Amino acid sequence: MKFNKHLQNIKTYEAGKPIELVVREYGIEPQDIVKLASNENPLGCSPKVIDAVGKILTKMSLYPDDSMISLKNALSKRYNVDSENVIIGSGSDQVIEFLIHAKAHSGSKILMNSITFAMYEIYSKHVGADVIRTSSQEHDLDEFYELYKQEKPEIIFICTPNNPTGDALDAQKIYNFLEKIDNDTLVVVDAAYMEYAIVKDAKKEINVKELIQKHSNVIYLGTFSKAYGLGGMRVGYGISEAKIIKELYKLRPPFNITTLSLEAATVALSDEEFVQKSTALNLEQMKRYEEFAKEQKIDIINSYTNFVTLSLGSNQNSTKIASQLLQNGMIVRDLSSYNMNAIRVTIGTQEQNSRFFKLVIKFL
Amino acid sequence: MKFNKHLQNIKTYEAGKPIELVVREYGIEPQDIVKLASNENPLGCSPKVIDAVGKILTKMSLYPDDSMISLKNALSKRYNVDSENVIIGSGSDQVIEFLIHAKAHSGSKILMNSITFAMYEIYSKHVGADVIRTSSQEHDLDEFYELYKQEKPEIIFICTPNNPTGDALDAQKIYNFLEKIDNDTLVVVDAAYMEYAIVKDAKKEINVKELIQKHSNVIYLGTFSKAYGLGGMRVGYGISEAKIIKELYKLRPPFNITTLSLEAATVALSDEEFVQKSTALNLEQMKRYEEFAKEQKIDIINSYTNFVTLSLGSNQNSTKIASQLLQNGMIVRDLSSYNMNAIRVTIGTQEQNSRFFKLVIKFL
Repeated sequence: MKFNKHLQNIKTYEAGKPIELVVREYGIEPQDIVKLASNENPLGCSPKVIDAVGKILTKMSLYPDDSMISLKNALSKRYNVDSENVIIGSGSDQVIEFLIHAKAHSGSKILMNSITFAMYEIYSKHVGADVIRTSSQEHDLDEFYELYKQEKPEIIFICTPNNPTGDALDAQKIYNFLEKIDNDTLVVVDAAYMEYAIVKDAKKEINVKELIQKHSNVIYLGTFSKAYGLGGMRVGYGISEAKIIKELYKLRPPFNITTLSLEAATVALSDEEFVQKSTALNLEQMKRYEEFAKEQKIDIINSYTNFVTLSLGSNQNSTKIASQLLQNGMIVRDLSSYNMNAIRVTIGTQEQNSRFFKLVIKFL
Repeated sequence: MKFNKHLQNIKTYEAGKPIELVVREYGIEPQDIVKLASNENPLGCSPKVIDAVGKILTKMSLYPDDSMISLKNALSKRYNVDSENVIIGSGSDQVIEFLIHAKAHSGSKILMNSITFAMYEIYSKHVGADVIRTSSQEHDLDEFYELYKQEKPEIIFICTPNNPTGDALDAQKIYNFLEKIDNDTLVVVDAAYMEYAIVKDAKKEINVKELIQKHSNVIYLGTFSKAYGLGGMRVGYGISEAKIIKELYKLRPPFNITTLSLEAATVALSDEEFVQKSTALNLEQMKRYEEFAKEQKIDIINSYTNFVTLSLGSNQNSTKIASQLLQNGMIVRDLSSYNMNAIRVTIGTQEQNSRFFKLVIKFL
């Protein structure tokens, strides 16, 4: 059977290995496995969320309120925007899918950083669009601007903080960049890890209300998967001018998050204390990684997220080290598929991080 | 901002009104509202599922096993196929989305019944494909064949039992039809309500293993939203030849169902007793609707699902009656958007159905 031609070029996303797989493949007991590969919150999620979801388990048979008004209202309040400025996705991934399908098509150009979130490219290929990448490892908005003028992309992705490298742009730099971009180019500001960035450096924080009021061509993305600790519940969102949201809504399948996810995300937003606790622990433990890297003379990218990226030396091999760690029940992310000789390690609990340090030292 | 042209023609799906909306709009207390609009299971879901999900609430922070091997193995066993023949979607909706995006494109033709599941058309429009419809209300496979020869569609949708009408085809008729279709036309057999059909008439049951062994161009769709009582958890599946599944996988976003949904669906498959109880209650209560329709001289379409479609007389108006019911806390589906003067009523519990009969009689 023949399928659309552009499918030939699509590689599927390589997810962080789940604990179940390591149990199956290496016969290690689940309790002996530490997963620091998918940037999940090591504190889990808010106990209030667990309580609330536990109380509505009999509602699993009922479709969610497809207007998602409870969650949209909570997000509007959080960002001081209107609910018509908000769209909910099954992870912010799905909002990325909507906007690429809405704006791009075969032959469109989509501009993104040399190294960045893999799903931008995968969704671009779904519609047969061409991916244009900068050359610098960190986001260099001057280079973005040069490529923008030269290539006239339909969409520009800015990932701040960036995944899988962890660096982040000052908000002011993004504001200045946006001033120079024409109104018909959609600029995506993917801020999945922003909650971690702002506790480390307030200059990274984007004023979302101002952003969308000033610019009719920008969409801000956030997620409940990281600081809110709901990676397994698949809820993210986009915030933009109402006109853009209305177009994206045309591509939203009904009931695109579960009944339990809707409740979980809504309640999660009411427990900012949990987020503060999570980001504080993260910052404290990140310092241990920074010290460890210094001691071991490993390059570490200054991170504004809940992970650190350790760039290995030429006498070390990230694939080999990740594999050795895996065989010892420690799951981290090898970044060789991003053409980096580096591993990405989610910042875990005090104990998990200690175990990582102790183990990795054997293989460095 | 300009968006892709074909978005102009997309209407968004109109979901059954959730109870929350009726509470907000009409000020009726939740306990006084009966929703017979979205074909949800009135028994809820299996108690085993509630137990199992309740035990893993702390895993909401963890991404699901993206291989979904537990669920794929359980489905393979259920249908006696290999796990490489199975793809999981966020509802069978999402599998429909995958296959349209994989096979169709701007200008493709997609053939479907005059009245059928609304998402086929909506997803077709997402890629700018043209929808070809039969003229007969029930699936007439002779007419499908004539249109197939004439229009050479990329995809043919057969919905059996059909939604929102409830009628179903004998499996043999589908087998005969498939013999005449060339290998490059993808035939979708959407069997979301099949669990209800087979208890009413065994001739409706499709042998999925044989179907996909004999035909390399067919995909069978099933869901956990109906008889398994997990509408709110968004899990469906497609079963097809491995080559087709592999192509569809290229369009599957990672983690497309939640961690709790994966557990819920896997456990649901192990409790066939619950499904039997659900379909038995449904069949028993359906008889009451059939008797009621006979007494009231209302046309009822012979249903093989968990809903009945009541075709109203020319002196009655489905929109008016649905609205009157709604104001009294009874949510049903007005089918006027399908150009039918009919209402679709989910078969509820004994008590819910009694309440429907008592109430609707006032407005007929």
